[in-house]
Amino acid sequence: MREVRVLEIKQSVFADNDRQADLLRQDLKERGVFLLNLMSSPGAGKTTTLMRTIEALKDTFKIGVMEADIDSDVDAQTISGSGAKVIQLHTGGMCHLDAEMTRQGLAGLQTDDVELAILENVGNLVCPAEFDTGAVKNAMILSVPEGHDKPLKYPLMFTICDVVLINKIDVMPYFDFDLEKCKEYIRMRNPNAKIIPICAKTGEGIEEWSKWLKEEVSRWCMTK
Amino acid sequence: MREVRVLEIKQSVFADNDRQADLLRQDLKERGVFLLNLMSSPGAGKTTTLMRTIEALKDTFKIGVMEADIDSDVDAQTISGSGAKVIQLHTGGMCHLDAEMTRQGLAGLQTDDVELAILENVGNLVCPAEFDTGAVKNAMILSVPEGHDKPLKYPLMFTICDVVLINKIDVMPYFDFDLEKCKEYIRMRNPNAKIIPICAKTGEGIEEWSKWLKEEVSRWCMTK
Repeated sequence: MREVRVLEIKQSVFADNDRQADLLRQDLKERGVFLLNLMSSPGAGKTTTLMRTIEALKDTFKIGVMEADIDSDVDAQTISGSGAKVIQLHTGGMCHLDAEMTRQGLAGLQTDDVELAILENVGNLVCPAEFDTGAVKNAMILSVPEGHDKPLKYPLMFTICDVVLINKIDVMPYFDFDLEKCKEYIRMRNPNAKIIPICAKTGEGIEEWSKWLKEEVSRWCMTK
Repeated sequence: MREVRVLEIKQSVFADNDRQADLLRQDLKERGVFLLNLMSSPGAGKTTTLMRTIEALKDTFKIGVMEADIDSDVDAQTISGSGAKVIQLHTGGMCHLDAEMTRQGLAGLQTDDVELAILENVGNLVCPAEFDTGAVKNAMILSVPEGHDKPLKYPLMFTICDVVLINKIDVMPYFDFDLEKCKEYIRMRNPNAKIIPICAKTGEGIEEWSKWLKEEVSRWCMTK
């Protein structure tokens, strides 16, 4: 087992999270760091998608990953084999990260040599959607086994995400998942969301996703 | 579409949720109502499992279901076709139910003619584990596509559950899911948890689960 750094982050003392998030974004802009906030249900495939993303973009950007979990460091262990810089954040039982917790994470990760920082948020479709982390873009993964009705049940998550990756499309034949209906439900919540079907396990769709992310990071860093 | 009753429940004003939960349990005991709290990640199969459970036990007990969701009433619509009494609870964005919210739900459901009341909690492995709802037993569903490492990442949920249903075992061949390792991780968190592999879609394992639930309900109602 590799040794991964573990940071115990503390709940924010700031009442105004939105203000803290804007300040963090401004700070990231000045330092030329793009922060992506990646969210999903438990087990939707965040870590596997991250491994593929790092593989696709590691020659283009210097990448740093923050793995946020209530407990364990299994995901950070996995990411540490990818070549990207990684830190494990323990949330002390908290179900989400806010801007101040994210700031602590970034300080722990040390982003002087990072262009693309990725926060793997706690697996949860509810609470993380309510707290702006200060990220430049929000991405979420919905996996096929969860069902196409999730945008109906977790509206805020789909509303705040810039991109929705529909993962595990390789197992579509084994589930009652209607891709067109899913896209329709996502658009009901967020007409501007980019929707990309992927299979992190086989790599399908990762090119389109990496291209989108590459363009976003380039634009952010170019205009600093 | 059937007409389902929708109740907007309000966040608790009580500071001491544990006390409220104990009072609710005592009240349920006096009235001979068994309350099961069913939890899982989004899309793990709570509603399909409930449909099978109602089918198996509807001739034994009078059953009432509370469907808790942030938004939508798709699950209550589904359950309303089962023959069980059902009410949709909207949590006003809240990521979990506490004892007072559950009490409001039970009052809305009207349990005078109910022996087995089931609360389908909000799809979330974090927050619902932190709040005792007043239920007699806690059950959770972990689905195969989520992965066998979930007890490592969401320790409290597995610690507080009396029974863990491992659902969607029909798709095990398509996922890297190690059932023995999963059981081992669950036992690390909770040596006393009953573990039952099921497939709610095909009905596999539902007999064992229904038998367990039937015994628990009978014991609770007999000793009132």
